[in-house]
Amino acid sequence: MYQTHRPLGAMRWILSLLLVLPLLAQAANEVLPSWNDGPSRKAIEAFVGAVTTEGSKDFVPVAERIAVFDNDGTLWSEQPMYFQVLFAFDEVKRMAPQHPEWKEKQPFKALLEGDRETLAASGMKGLLEIVGATHTNMTTEAFSANAERWLASAKHPRSGKPYTEMVFQPMLELLDYLRANGFKTYIVSGGEVAFMRVFAEEVYGIPPEQVIGTTFASQFQDKDGQLSILRLPKLAHNDDGPGKPESIDSIIGRRPILAFGNSDGDLQMLQWTMAGKGKRFAGLVHHTDGEREWAYDRESKIGRLDKALDEAKSKNWVVVDMAREWTRVYPFETAPSKP
Amino acid sequence: MYQTHRPLGAMRWILSLLLVLPLLAQAANEVLPSWNDGPSRKAIEAFVGAVTTEGSKDFVPVAERIAVFDNDGTLWSEQPMYFQVLFAFDEVKRMAPQHPEWKEKQPFKALLEGDRETLAASGMKGLLEIVGATHTNMTTEAFSANAERWLASAKHPRSGKPYTEMVFQPMLELLDYLRANGFKTYIVSGGEVAFMRVFAEEVYGIPPEQVIGTTFASQFQDKDGQLSILRLPKLAHNDDGPGKPESIDSIIGRRPILAFGNSDGDLQMLQWTMAGKGKRFAGLVHHTDGEREWAYDRESKIGRLDKALDEAKSKNWVVVDMAREWTRVYPFETAPSKP
Repeated sequence: MYQTHRPLGAMRWILSLLLVLPLLAQAANEVLPSWNDGPSRKAIEAFVGAVTTEGSKDFVPVAERIAVFDNDGTLWSEQPMYFQVLFAFDEVKRMAPQHPEWKEKQPFKALLEGDRETLAASGMKGLLEIVGATHTNMTTEAFSANAERWLASAKHPRSGKPYTEMVFQPMLELLDYLRANGFKTYIVSGGEVAFMRVFAEEVYGIPPEQVIGTTFASQFQDKDGQLSILRLPKLAHNDDGPGKPESIDSIIGRRPILAFGNSDGDLQMLQWTMAGKGKRFAGLVHHTDGEREWAYDRESKIGRLDKALDEAKSKNWVVVDMAREWTRVYPFETAPSKP
Repeated sequence: MYQTHRPLGAMRWILSLLLVLPLLAQAANEVLPSWNDGPSRKAIEAFVGAVTTEGSKDFVPVAERIAVFDNDGTLWSEQPMYFQVLFAFDEVKRMAPQHPEWKEKQPFKALLEGDRETLAASGMKGLLEIVGATHTNMTTEAFSANAERWLASAKHPRSGKPYTEMVFQPMLELLDYLRANGFKTYIVSGGEVAFMRVFAEEVYGIPPEQVIGTTFASQFQDKDGQLSILRLPKLAHNDDGPGKPESIDSIIGRRPILAFGNSDGDLQMLQWTMAGKGKRFAGLVHHTDGEREWAYDRESKIGRLDKALDEAKSKNWVVVDMAREWTRVYPFETAPSKP
């Protein structure tokens, strides 16, 4: 009996191997498939290999594998304007019938009349008024429903795609790759936290409790047993620049070992990440692709990358050349658009 | 060959079974071993069974199994005074040589001279001054080192045990049991967040990023490339009462399905948890054990339980009778002290 079993066993073994081999090959290709073989992909793989190899001098236990990502311009596009600002503009138009006073009140009047010059002249103060009117004095639940409705129907002015499709395919792959290697992935963004939570889990695989952002003060309300959290028109935390390491310290309570950003607003988060002990990784998405996405850096009003680019170069941080290193920018590009 | 193998196989199988059976029996007892067969343990097991049984109408996906716990009086003792306040008192004594002005300045003078009456008369304002002086105007790193040093050496005035051993064995078991059933366990406490993070991971198995508490404003500092987070003497968030659902909404971004507290400061967190859809659990630790721990509720200055006890009774929340339901209070009790 043994004699007849052995060849069958061997055949089965060879057969299984034949079935498994293509899967193994495919698995190897599936790591960061939209990154070409350039320096960024190599640096990412070398870093992840080093911190996840037990016995390596650079090994980092799973619990400490914290990775933080900026959102606007790092995980999705931010042109011609931060998408959340476009949401606020659309919300003003939607809410205008309930606010007849806006017809005579700036900056709402300018926005409703399409008077771009006056709107631009209202500056940051005007923008904060628009954000306040569309983001606060309502419950978190009501706000989230508004954001959800907008994200489900609004289209990006250039691509005509929903905003949640204007995410970077290579960064989705990087998030997956890190999580598959035991990393906990966080968003740490200047965007408002409840807005991002509406899509972050579905689009990025990042759950609400791993989304950190700008926050408004809030108030617990109990109206005859009807409980809610009211969003107040008062900033509690501005999660930009130095606000990023501050919120990382306050909310995560430990230092990330990997950080990715794209603008000067991410500089302190990258510095804070790199200042810890042991092997660390800092990356910048450099918007170099005027064809498939946008090309901008030192002179841009949105997502200016100037000081952080200098520091990245002087400290050998990874600067991703989008045009050269990404074979695909958006998930809706069906085939790689560059070799 | 087969003929001789079969009985051996069967014997092996029976042998393995004999070896495994006691382990199975033990495993069954290992769930919440310090809880007797009272109503609280039954309610906990019924709830966890319902929300984790696939196909059950009460099933909750793993991602939504968020459990929140108060700390003082819920996970560890809080008598004769919140342990963090005792830490602040000890820190004033330790820091006094560097602060000669405290000899003449209240409430520090009273504290250093052991003048309890004057100290008590300084009230909440005095306490905040003491907490401010010992918790702020230093980096998070420096503060954590202070807290760590104190926790490693200080002893509780009655038990003579380190404070980190004054934790409730049945609650440690509950945390383990919930995590084994896919729950993410959080602390949501009036205590200051950096203080709790020093011991929460080791003692409770709760990582820094799942510790939520009262926070001070902070400031990112860059002194010639030396980076730090400076703690400012200004409250950013008071995580007590309505502050608890506010921080849950802001930091976790979804509603817990289980909450445990012990005082009126936890009422809004319990209400917020119970007001969601689907099956939910609210529990209160009732300090009924003057022998092994402390007995206090409606009249206590520390951890007053009055309104929340009424609401728990009217809404059939679980109220744990510590004296009757816990066979063991602290881990250092080697044998169950009650049957």
